[in-house]
Amino acid sequence: MSTPVVSELAPPLRLLLGPGPSMVHPRVLRAMSTPLLGHLDPKFLEIMNEVQAQLRAVFRTENPFTIAVSGTGSAGMEAALVNLLEPGDTAVVVVAGVFGGRMADIVGRCGARLVKIDVPWGEVCDPARIEEALKREGKVKVVALVHAETSTGAHQPLEGLGALCHAHGALLVADTVTSLGGVPVEVDAWGVDACYSGTQKCLSCPPGLAPLTLSPRALEAVKARKTKVQSWYLDAGMVADYWAEGKRVYHHTAPISMVYALRESLRLVLEEGLEARFARHRRHSAALMAGVAALGFEPQAQEGHRLPSLNCIKVPAGVDEAAARKGLLADHSIEIGGGLGPLAGKVWRIGLMGESARQENVLAVLAAIEQALAKQGKLARAGASLAAALESYARS
Amino acid sequence: MSTPVVSELAPPLRLLLGPGPSMVHPRVLRAMSTPLLGHLDPKFLEIMNEVQAQLRAVFRTENPFTIAVSGTGSAGMEAALVNLLEPGDTAVVVVAGVFGGRMADIVGRCGARLVKIDVPWGEVCDPARIEEALKREGKVKVVALVHAETSTGAHQPLEGLGALCHAHGALLVADTVTSLGGVPVEVDAWGVDACYSGTQKCLSCPPGLAPLTLSPRALEAVKARKTKVQSWYLDAGMVADYWAEGKRVYHHTAPISMVYALRESLRLVLEEGLEARFARHRRHSAALMAGVAALGFEPQAQEGHRLPSLNCIKVPAGVDEAAARKGLLADHSIEIGGGLGPLAGKVWRIGLMGESARQENVLAVLAAIEQALAKQGKLARAGASLAAALESYARS
Repeated sequence: MSTPVVSELAPPLRLLLGPGPSMVHPRVLRAMSTPLLGHLDPKFLEIMNEVQAQLRAVFRTENPFTIAVSGTGSAGMEAALVNLLEPGDTAVVVVAGVFGGRMADIVGRCGARLVKIDVPWGEVCDPARIEEALKREGKVKVVALVHAETSTGAHQPLEGLGALCHAHGALLVADTVTSLGGVPVEVDAWGVDACYSGTQKCLSCPPGLAPLTLSPRALEAVKARKTKVQSWYLDAGMVADYWAEGKRVYHHTAPISMVYALRESLRLVLEEGLEARFARHRRHSAALMAGVAALGFEPQAQEGHRLPSLNCIKVPAGVDEAAARKGLLADHSIEIGGGLGPLAGKVWRIGLMGESARQENVLAVLAAIEQALAKQGKLARAGASLAAALESYARS
Repeated sequence: MSTPVVSELAPPLRLLLGPGPSMVHPRVLRAMSTPLLGHLDPKFLEIMNEVQAQLRAVFRTENPFTIAVSGTGSAGMEAALVNLLEPGDTAVVVVAGVFGGRMADIVGRCGARLVKIDVPWGEVCDPARIEEALKREGKVKVVALVHAETSTGAHQPLEGLGALCHAHGALLVADTVTSLGGVPVEVDAWGVDACYSGTQKCLSCPPGLAPLTLSPRALEAVKARKTKVQSWYLDAGMVADYWAEGKRVYHHTAPISMVYALRESLRLVLEEGLEARFARHRRHSAALMAGVAALGFEPQAQEGHRLPSLNCIKVPAGVDEAAARKGLLADHSIEIGGGLGPLAGKVWRIGLMGESARQENVLAVLAAIEQALAKQGKLARAGASLAAALESYARS
C-alpha cells in the first residue's frame, strides 16, 4: 500500500483512425474543462434540455424520451434491451458480427427467449429473414439489430423494418453506435422504437455517454412490464423522471462534464449540417478505399453495404498485420483497429468518423501503410495508394 | 425536427457546497481536456495501471481487482451487488437513508431475498443487530451498508464488521461514495469485500466513474456463480479481463477523458496525503458546524457519528428553507443541498468535500446563510455564525 509515484499526464499525440474513439475537436475538449454546475442546478437543467433537442435533431425524431445514458455505448445497448425485455419475452436478434452477438448475450441475461438470425460476418440481413422469423415465432416482443456493425464495416439497411415489426406487434431496436452523425439515421421515418449510440464515434465526443431515444410505443412497453427493470441504474422510468422537463427528480448524478462535451460536439455536428457531414464521410471513405485497393486490400463488407465511417479491409496474404499496425503506432502515432473474433488477424478497421474524416488523415494513413508494407517487402509500387486517393478526391 | 439553436457554453460559476459534485481543481479540469488515446493504446494501458495503483492507495487495499467502473457512483453500487448476488441468495441490508434504500431496491432486482435492518435516519447501525441477523437468517451471502449516508450525514463505523461477516460466511459490501478521500476508509483492515465510491465527492473529480475494489473472497464468489451476471456492462469477470495487466481484453470503451481526470484528482489526493486530507475535512466541518449552531441549526446525524464531508443540519422552524436555498444560489451562486425523502423540506446538506473543504468557502456560505435568514427576519444576531467559525478555526 505504498503511495504510487505518478507523473504529470502527458500522453503522446495520436491520430485516431481506429474503431473509436475518434479525434475530438478542440472546442469539445475545452468544453469539458468548464467548471461544473450541480446536476440539479436550474442552469444545468437548461443544458439538458438543449442536449435533448440536439439529440432529437441528430436522431431525426420527435421522441420526448431522448437522453444521454450515463455510460458508454454498451450501456446504451443494455439500457435499450433491459427496459424492453423481461423473462418470458421473445427477442429476434440479427447476429452479423461482435455487436449483434453482444445483443444476443444481453437478451439471455434478461431471461428472454433468444431467436438468433445468423448472418455471415460482413453481410447484411435480408428483411425477408426477419419477416419469416416474426411469422414463425408467434409473439415476438423485440427485433434487434445493428445498423453499423463495427466489427465488419457492414451497413444494415433499416428502412421499412419498423413497419414490418409493428405489423407483427414487435418493437424495433437499432444499434447506431458507429452510424449516428456519420451516415443517415432516421428514427421516426424508419419506425425505430429504441435507438442508441455512443459519443466517441461519428459524433467525435470522448466516450462516456450513450445517446438513447425511445418511441412512445417503446415507453408503453416499459410501462406495461410485470417485473421491475433488472438494472436500477438504467431503469428508463426513473431516468425519464430526471430528464423530463418540469420533473427533474434526482435519480443518479449525471456525468456533467461529459454532458458539456456532448453539447459542444452536437453543436459542431449541427453547424456542419447532417447532409454535409454524411457527404464528407462518403468522400473521404471513397478516397481511402481507392487507396488501399491499390495496395491489394479488399473490403470485408458486402458491396453496396459498406460503412464510410468504418472501413473494414482484408489484409493481403503474407502481410504480418500486427507488426504493421504496431509500426503505424510507433512510427506515425496513428491508431487503426485490428479484427475482432473470427476476423482477428485477418482484417483492419480504419475509422473515418467525425473529426477523423479529413483528407490529411486519409493521406497520412495511406503513406504510413505504404511504409509499413515496404518494411515487410510487400509494397509493389510506392505511391500507388496516394495516387489512387488523390484521383478519387479529384473526382469528388 | 428543426435544428435547435444552442449558444456557446457559458454556465455561471458556482461554489459547489451540496452533496456533490464538489469543486474541481483546475489541474483536473485541464487533464480532462487532454487529447485522447485509444482505449487499447499501450500508453493508455499504462495510465490504467497507474490509476489502479492510486485507487489501491486511497482504498487502502492490496486487491488486484481495483478499477474505475464506467458510470457514476450508483453504477458502482449496482456493479457490487449484481456481481455478488443471484436468485436464491440472501442479502442483509442496513437501511438508514436513501442510499441504503437504493441498495435494498437493487437486491430485489437481483432476485435475491432481502433482509432489511431499518435504522432511524441520522443514526448508525449497532453491529449487534447485524450479528443477530446473521445468526437468525442462516446462510447470508452479503451484508451491505453505507459508510457515509449522503442523505443524513451519518458516519457508520465499519471496523470489525468484515470479521463478523466472514465468521458467518458472508461478504461485506460497503458504500463509500461520500467518504473515500474525506474520512478514513480501510478496505483491507476492515475486511470489506466489495467497496465502491464515486469520483465527484471527496475525490473532487467530475462525476462519471465509480471506483470499485473487490477482495479475492468476493472474486471467488463471482466465479462460483451458477448464473450469468444480469448486467453485461458491469460483469466483473469481463471487466476484469480489460483491467488486468497482461490481458486487456476489449470489453467496452472506457471513458478515457474521465480516467485522465480521475488520475489527476488522485494525484492531488496523494500529494496532500490521506491523513492531512482527513484532518482538513474535520477542521472545516468543525468550523461550519460551530457557525450554523450559532444560527440555531442542529445536526441531523447522531452525535459521535457525523460526517465532516457531508454536514446534514435541521433547518430551524419557521425558516422557508427552499426560499433560502434559492437565495444562496441566486444571490451568492452557492449550491447547497436540500433533504431527500422524509427529510425533504426539513434539512440542509452542506458538503465540504475535497476541494470544497476550504476556509474561504465555509465563511462564504455562513455569510450567505446569514443574509438569507435576515431576509426572512430569522437572523437573531448578525455575524454570530462567522464569529463562531473563526473561533473554531482559532482553536484548530
